[in-house]
Amino acid sequence: MQTEVRYQVEPPVESPVMICGLPGIGSVAWLAVNHLQKELKAQLFAEVLSPMFSPKVWLTDEGLVRLMKGEFHFWKNTGEGTDVLLFSANEQPYAPEGQYELAEVVLDVAEKFKVRRVITMGGIATERFADQPKVYVGGTDVELVKEIEARGAVRLSGGAITGTNGLIFGLAKPKKMRAICLLAETPGYLSLDANAAKAVLILTAKLLNISLDFSALDKQAKENVEAVQRAKDMSRGGLAHEARKGGDLTYVS
Amino acid sequence: MQTEVRYQVEPPVESPVMICGLPGIGSVAWLAVNHLQKELKAQLFAEVLSPMFSPKVWLTDEGLVRLMKGEFHFWKNTGEGTDVLLFSANEQPYAPEGQYELAEVVLDVAEKFKVRRVITMGGIATERFADQPKVYVGGTDVELVKEIEARGAVRLSGGAITGTNGLIFGLAKPKKMRAICLLAETPGYLSLDANAAKAVLILTAKLLNISLDFSALDKQAKENVEAVQRAKDMSRGGLAHEARKGGDLTYVS
Amino acid sequence: MQTEVRYQVEPPVESPVMICGLPGIGSVAWLAVNHLQKELKAQLFAEVLSPMFSPKVWLTDEGLVRLMKGEFHFWKNTGEGTDVLLFSANEQPYAPEGQYELAEVVLDVAEKFKVRRVITMGGIATERFADQPKVYVGGTDVELVKEIEARGAVRLSGGAITGTNGLIFGLAKPKKMRAICLLAETPGYLSLDANAAKAVLILTAKLLNISLDFSALDKQAKENVEAVQRAKDMSRGGLAHEARKGGDLTYVS
Amino acid sequence: MQTEVRYQVEPPVESPVMICGLPGIGSVAWLAVNHLQKELKAQLFAEVLSPMFSPKVWLTDEGLVRLMKGEFHFWKNTGEGTDVLLFSANEQPYAPEGQYELAEVVLDVAEKFKVRRVITMGGIATERFADQPKVYVGGTDVELVKEIEARGAVRLSGGAITGTNGLIFGLAKPKKMRAICLLAETPGYLSLDANAAKAVLILTAKLLNISLDFSALDKQAKENVEAVQRAKDMSRGGLAHEARKGGDLTYVS
Repeated sequence: MQTEVRYQVEPPVESPVMICGLPGIGSVAWLAVNHLQKELKAQLFAEVLSPMFSPKVWLTDEGLVRLMKGEFHFWKNTGEGTDVLLFSANEQPYAPEGQYELAEVVLDVAEKFKVRRVITMGGIATERFADQPKVYVGGTDVELVKEIEARGAVRLSGGAITGTNGLIFGLAKPKKMRAICLLAETPGYLSLDANAAKAVLILTAKLLNISLDFSALDKQAKENVEAVQRAKDMSRGGLAHEARKGGDLTYVS
Repeated sequence: MQTEVRYQVEPPVESPVMICGLPGIGSVAWLAVNHLQKELKAQLFAEVLSPMFSPKVWLTDEGLVRLMKGEFHFWKNTGEGTDVLLFSANEQPYAPEGQYELAEVVLDVAEKFKVRRVITMGGIATERFADQPKVYVGGTDVELVKEIEARGAVRLSGGAITGTNGLIFGLAKPKKMRAICLLAETPGYLSLDANAAKAVLILTAKLLNISLDFSALDKQAKENVEAVQRAKDMSRGGLAHEARKGGDLTYVS
Repeated sequence: MQTEVRYQVEPPVESPVMICGLPGIGSVAWLAVNHLQKELKAQLFAEVLSPMFSPKVWLTDEGLVRLMKGEFHFWKNTGEGTDVLLFSANEQPYAPEGQYELAEVVLDVAEKFKVRRVITMGGIATERFADQPKVYVGGTDVELVKEIEARGAVRLSGGAITGTNGLIFGLAKPKKMRAICLLAETPGYLSLDANAAKAVLILTAKLLNISLDFSALDKQAKENVEAVQRAKDMSRGGLAHEARKGGDLTYVS
Repeated sequence: MQTEVRYQVEPPVESPVMICGLPGIGSVAWLAVNHLQKELKAQLFAEVLSPMFSPKVWLTDEGLVRLMKGEFHFWKNTGEGTDVLLFSANEQPYAPEGQYELAEVVLDVAEKFKVRRVITMGGIATERFADQPKVYVGGTDVELVKEIEARGAVRLSGGAITGTNGLIFGLAKPKKMRAICLLAETPGYLSLDANAAKAVLILTAKLLNISLDFSALDKQAKENVEAVQRAKDMSRGGLAHEARKGGDLTYVS
């Protein structure tokens, strides 16, 4: 079986920005792209079927079968500003070669629709639980990095980005595409860090010059805060009761 | 070495149903398809040789060598009702890519012979040893799921099916074939759960409108029950003797 | 890098028998084919270079580099009887796909030179250290198995043969070549079981109607016996001294 | 994604020597080739992008993204003596097939530019920390080995060289290229053994008839010596103080 991109419609976009986010640490990128897709009501235009995904299927509540796959959505901006393509997947390919292959498939679609800029996302593990997570940026050229720094991001200096989110970013360069990677800080222990996803989206919204409703992410983030607090209460025993009464809720872990 | 489908005869079938079952939990699907093949006296028409199977051969009692392989059988229904193609194999491919590849090979054969419906099977681990195991169903479309529910199956809501039995089912959809997956509940500890295999076959026989003799599976199932009982006796010590005298044999584990 | 068979000369053989032995349990097959090659003064005619071997090179005493590889030798029988092709390798491919690929490469060479019969070899682990190891036989057809049984081999009934030695044997059948596999019993703990290698060669010599000098294997086998005895002495402590004085050396482990 | 050699310029070389060093034990080969590249001010002429490298990217201090890759540099000798091609990479491919593939890619470039001799490098673990590490040599032919022995190297007798540095060396032979491998002795515990790298470079400089400034490697080597001494001091506790006062600094581990 070969990897296949199955188009459902031709997306009517012009020089779009492509935003990519696969599951990874804190599911930051995946949450962000899913939120964008729902808020923008972006439409599915292509699927990636591939043996580089796990050999399993899953079922909807209606008992309908679904493959592991990648999905491309588009959003036609009817106002001013840029059109958008989105890419996400149920999971990252399990093998290194698969991660390279998927990154290339995504960039081939980006080339096909003359994407002007690729944005990939992710989380960066830090030791603190941040109320307002910092967003770090790396890019394919100095001007791009400086532009994003001016919007409030912190420049990545050194370090590595593993997995497909990093490879889409890195392989853009030899393909002569401009790309940035936005990494929100996230503690390692959250599986769905909505607060970090919101942080990258606030910056992304600025870059796209669009406004976004974050209430769904806020709701998830609030649940995270409460879960963290409960975990702390349990580890502190009786003292927790007093602590809760006595002061503000803080997020320091 | 490439995967190869070696045809022995052209199966004289019209719009058959294809029933697939590879070894998996409780060997449910494998037992079911083997039982069907023997009871229907279905004939071998093609073999799948492939490096995606384990690198070993096995020997018959006569000292003859046999490769690990997949086998297709056909059954020409001389009465009313549907013709049948069967697929099984000694094992599932050991690697994820191999599982995708085999699923695609099987569906290519299904397409070649204009299969009207694909049925894949499997086990679903539950905590109880059921006398009459429930059969769960998922499908490629809502009508199909409802049709099978009406025959007594329980709709799968959520969850994942791993391995080749799931992939044949899931890949049928993008190939525009209608498919269902029937999963019988099975406790995790039985390696050959004949009772679960019988449960999926009773439903399958209804769907095919054929009658089947289950005595071979009943014999195997009876041995299972006795083995489970022996295991319980051993773990209960002397009390077991009394329990056996005092009441009905029950299968609650 | 692709697997490549590099021919050095065209072997001037007619309807040869091909004898194959890769390293495996007790190195039985490898020892046997190496012994044959030296005793028959068989000549190298082709090499198999492939990324399916381990990623390393080794050095001769003269500091010359050697790749991991497979080697084909031929022996032109100047008397009556059959010509012979030999195949061995430094190791078995490390991955299952590589084992299938190498088996196919070997059988392609067999086809090219119109081999009339393929003999693969190996060890079969038993619990005893046998002075005269039994040789088991399996084949691609009943007549062949019976022929070898008549020469003193024991028919394999059931069981599996893993690895390349088994695959060459098993894949011969769909390629319409006649093949046998000879397995000598060997205890699991010997890395070079010369005695077992001798056992398969005695039978092979009968089949080829040639006579062989076994003194090199006898020397190695004697060293094995002594090593086994030393190990037993060490585990028995002082009693060993008496045992050695009091009776014949026996090989019971 | 396929492995790709991306040329930036055509190197204006004639019958060059190619010197290859990938990361390995003590990073000996990698340090040596990097030192050569800097000292000779060799220029980048081609890059190898490939899914056989790890699925990650890294960032410069400026926040610019870099892929894992191989790099070819050239040095046009304006005096007498030979032109030079250099090859190194961020890492060795993680899988055996990738190591074979990269070795072949490197030798294809060597063939393309009519390389007269290939030199690969590496470390060989010994138990001692040597002030003046021995350099061992193996080759594709006896004359070459003798030539390098005459320059002070010790002939490798037996043994194996694992990984890409060994495969480039070994695969040169069937491609009819002359190659040597130089291994400097290195203790296993140093991650960057500059002293060993210097040892292979001193010999290489003789072979190329060039002079090299080793001050950068000497600085690194001095830091190694101090780190080793600190580790010894810590493990000896108070005695270390006396030992330091009482005698010369020695490198015996």
